[in-house]
Amino acid sequence: MTRLAPVLLVLAACAAPPRGGDHVPAWVSDTSSYGSTVVVAPTASIAARYRDVAAKIIEAAQKDRGAYAKLAQLTDRIGHRLSGSPQLVRAIAWAAQTMKDDGHVVRTEKVMVPHWVRGVEEASLLAPIARPLPVLGLGGSVSTPKGGLTANVVVIHDFKELEARAAEIKGAIVLYDVAMPPWTEDKGHYGYGVAVPYRTRGAMNAAKYGAVAVLVRSVTPNSLNTLHTGAMRYDDAQPKIPAASVTVEDSLLIARLAATGPVKIKLRLESQQLPDAESANVIGELVGREAPDEIVVIGGHLDSWDVGQGAHDDGAGCVTMMQAITVLKRLGLQPRRTIRVVLFTNEENGVRGAKAYATDHAAELPKTVLAVESDGGGYSPRGFWVATKPEVQKRVVERMRDLASLLQPLGSSPIIPDGHAGTDVEPMIAGGVPTLNLLSANQSYFDVHHTPADTLDKVDPAQLADAVAAMAVLAYVVADLPDRLDTP
Amino acid sequence: MTRLAPVLLVLAACAAPPRGGDHVPAWVSDTSSYGSTVVVAPTASIAARYRDVAAKIIEAAQKDRGAYAKLAQLTDRIGHRLSGSPQLVRAIAWAAQTMKDDGHVVRTEKVMVPHWVRGVEEASLLAPIARPLPVLGLGGSVSTPKGGLTANVVVIHDFKELEARAAEIKGAIVLYDVAMPPWTEDKGHYGYGVAVPYRTRGAMNAAKYGAVAVLVRSVTPNSLNTLHTGAMRYDDAQPKIPAASVTVEDSLLIARLAATGPVKIKLRLESQQLPDAESANVIGELVGREAPDEIVVIGGHLDSWDVGQGAHDDGAGCVTMMQAITVLKRLGLQPRRTIRVVLFTNEENGVRGAKAYATDHAAELPKTVLAVESDGGGYSPRGFWVATKPEVQKRVVERMRDLASLLQPLGSSPIIPDGHAGTDVEPMIAGGVPTLNLLSANQSYFDVHHTPADTLDKVDPAQLADAVAAMAVLAYVVADLPDRLDTP
Repeated sequence: MTRLAPVLLVLAACAAPPRGGDHVPAWVSDTSSYGSTVVVAPTASIAARYRDVAAKIIEAAQKDRGAYAKLAQLTDRIGHRLSGSPQLVRAIAWAAQTMKDDGHVVRTEKVMVPHWVRGVEEASLLAPIARPLPVLGLGGSVSTPKGGLTANVVVIHDFKELEARAAEIKGAIVLYDVAMPPWTEDKGHYGYGVAVPYRTRGAMNAAKYGAVAVLVRSVTPNSLNTLHTGAMRYDDAQPKIPAASVTVEDSLLIARLAATGPVKIKLRLESQQLPDAESANVIGELVGREAPDEIVVIGGHLDSWDVGQGAHDDGAGCVTMMQAITVLKRLGLQPRRTIRVVLFTNEENGVRGAKAYATDHAAELPKTVLAVESDGGGYSPRGFWVATKPEVQKRVVERMRDLASLLQPLGSSPIIPDGHAGTDVEPMIAGGVPTLNLLSANQSYFDVHHTPADTLDKVDPAQLADAVAAMAVLAYVVADLPDRLDTP
Repeated sequence: MTRLAPVLLVLAACAAPPRGGDHVPAWVSDTSSYGSTVVVAPTASIAARYRDVAAKIIEAAQKDRGAYAKLAQLTDRIGHRLSGSPQLVRAIAWAAQTMKDDGHVVRTEKVMVPHWVRGVEEASLLAPIARPLPVLGLGGSVSTPKGGLTANVVVIHDFKELEARAAEIKGAIVLYDVAMPPWTEDKGHYGYGVAVPYRTRGAMNAAKYGAVAVLVRSVTPNSLNTLHTGAMRYDDAQPKIPAASVTVEDSLLIARLAATGPVKIKLRLESQQLPDAESANVIGELVGREAPDEIVVIGGHLDSWDVGQGAHDDGAGCVTMMQAITVLKRLGLQPRRTIRVVLFTNEENGVRGAKAYATDHAAELPKTVLAVESDGGGYSPRGFWVATKPEVQKRVVERMRDLASLLQPLGSSPIIPDGHAGTDVEPMIAGGVPTLNLLSANQSYFDVHHTPADTLDKVDPAQLADAVAAMAVLAYVVADLPDRLDTP
């Protein structure tokens, strides 16, 4: 954070929360939650109690490059790791071994995950001009008929227009040419929530009117002819039709061409939905010295889409948590409670890891004092979104503002807004677990999100180390406090 | 220009000149030329004489969207247009007809051009990890042996290192992992000149030591896994070896992998160098009222690389010049001399159009009072680089500073630095023709240059209209002045 210009820190104050799959949280269309953002008071009680140890943790974490070294192993040597892939199996084994090597108590917990495999993907514009059309199938898409399908395109800009033009849709390929609004200072990355429903629900909605396939403008505010994949859903009441993304550039081109006459496209997608595959959540613990059965969960997701390296999404979140407990261990810091790193599987296309964790650990949830996720990229930390049961929300926000003042050495004014829960920790809220979401200066996140460009070189080692510092301080303090964060 | 924030205008003051092929002008390694940049005096004589007509031209050009409409036709309907392609043939016919339709005097002048055709291009990393490696052949590259070649990689960071490691090169694929430094306020896009020699001369230099192929990091400061093609040369004294670009991301990955052990790659390129093809320069004239045989040449190049749409490079330059004389004609403005639009062919991989023009029009060069090129993208105009015979350089700069004050309505402080000549007008300098190069706020130019992302959506209609305004004023005034710009 200290390496960013002041203007960026200001801009970063409202950066979007991390988020995977197709979750579109309430804050997306409601900016009022930003109104509660305040600078934390530097003299409050948690801060006073932990100032010295926090400074020591920050100093050690900022010097440390272990998180980046781990990320390089995960991304360069294993690569992307979609659920069901051999790479995810390798990543799970690697993460478990790496945490063992760091001296932690490690186990894996079996989870069965969907196993979708991309095949041949090709498309062409046939009229009014003829040229290849790069496409990237959405995760879970069915195949086209063997050899592909050819149809005219109907360009749609929102679901209302889809309904209004229902009569034109039968037999057509629907293109959703919906722009993702850029990051803004007051709303952050709210634009993801504006555009992503067309990716997740576009196929089922168009199938209702007889569309034969859908194309979706890649969900990003910035493109260099960049294809973005992501999750989609089907409705069992509707035919399942194939769905792929096109680049922003090609979406705009097709819209321009369609404004003056028919546009014909050939699309061929071949994919396979195989039987569920065995996978696992990976768990590593720094066991507590007084109340080892009370737990602070800190996690990210180890799976990724099957393009790029899954560096920001979410390799960075995983190695941040792995290194946070390693930094504490090397400092000889053993908090009162246990800090448990959970590397969830299958966040991107099923959330099976998170659901399994919440179910399998239901008995432990009353003693789980906090669950924190990082899934917005490995950028400079800026604060934490808070999402809890309504009755404790205010109290947790209040105490987090106190605690977060310990992070001032990482930059000015950590922020603690009300927010939505991270996808992987959300299922624990019903069990009474307060959750946090690491908020970072991630304005460029959606440039690379779910693309071949989500690669190690996009991660700054010093920013990643700052994220480790923020997480190590947070986890240590919450695990060591005499009372729970949500104690009234 | 008026649509840019003040900070961008300041930044733009030293934006790099447009430039094609492999020209690396002197300013690239010499920033002293920027020292001569000054704000033009608003009360000087040319400005005083032409203030009213310039204001009228600017008002008309800024309202006009004809250049953008032309660019949409060229890019969306014809597409990219490499020398020898059917699209370039269509573009030539389209440009001639379009200028005729606008009421200009039009002809084409035959030029034979190289005809290189890209074929199958594929590569894979084989060790230490296995995955596909996207590549884009450099223009003019020979093919690999049928079925491809497989070799270990030697990663090189500059030509000195190549020499120092000559013994390792035999039988290897050389990867030039050379970063293009980003745009800076004081030096502009000097970084292109730093990196591009590895694209143009990398193959011949590596062939000297027995390399079997070269890979070149894409020449760009910003990448979303973006492949950039471009020109390369062979040395007849050395074996011709195939050459392709890789993305910045993959270049960095291979360099990281090679730092710890052998990296093996398979590369397959199939291309064809066919017999020279017939092409043409397209010429459209607004004939002068008093001295029609005296000429102001304004031009761009109609050919492009065979990716994207060639929108900024250099469709924008062509339509800017086409529209400049159309705006003048519609205003009923016929200057003393002739304004001649020349749309050069084959700038990208041969410069045959420019050479043919200078040769075929040698007798006219003494009466060619100025030649101006735009080949740096269709961005907000910022001024003009001046490149002339040394003995008139100072005088032309001086008078251009006077003239350019007429462009103040387009934004503050047009700048007139000493510069290098545009590729297509450079051959005229020896014939005594002063040349200018349109300087624009093109900081993002090299993000899309020679890539699939050089598309119409990257061009802002209002910025393009401002470029038309700048060119129309410049061309009109120089064509109408009582004396030549270089009159002592």
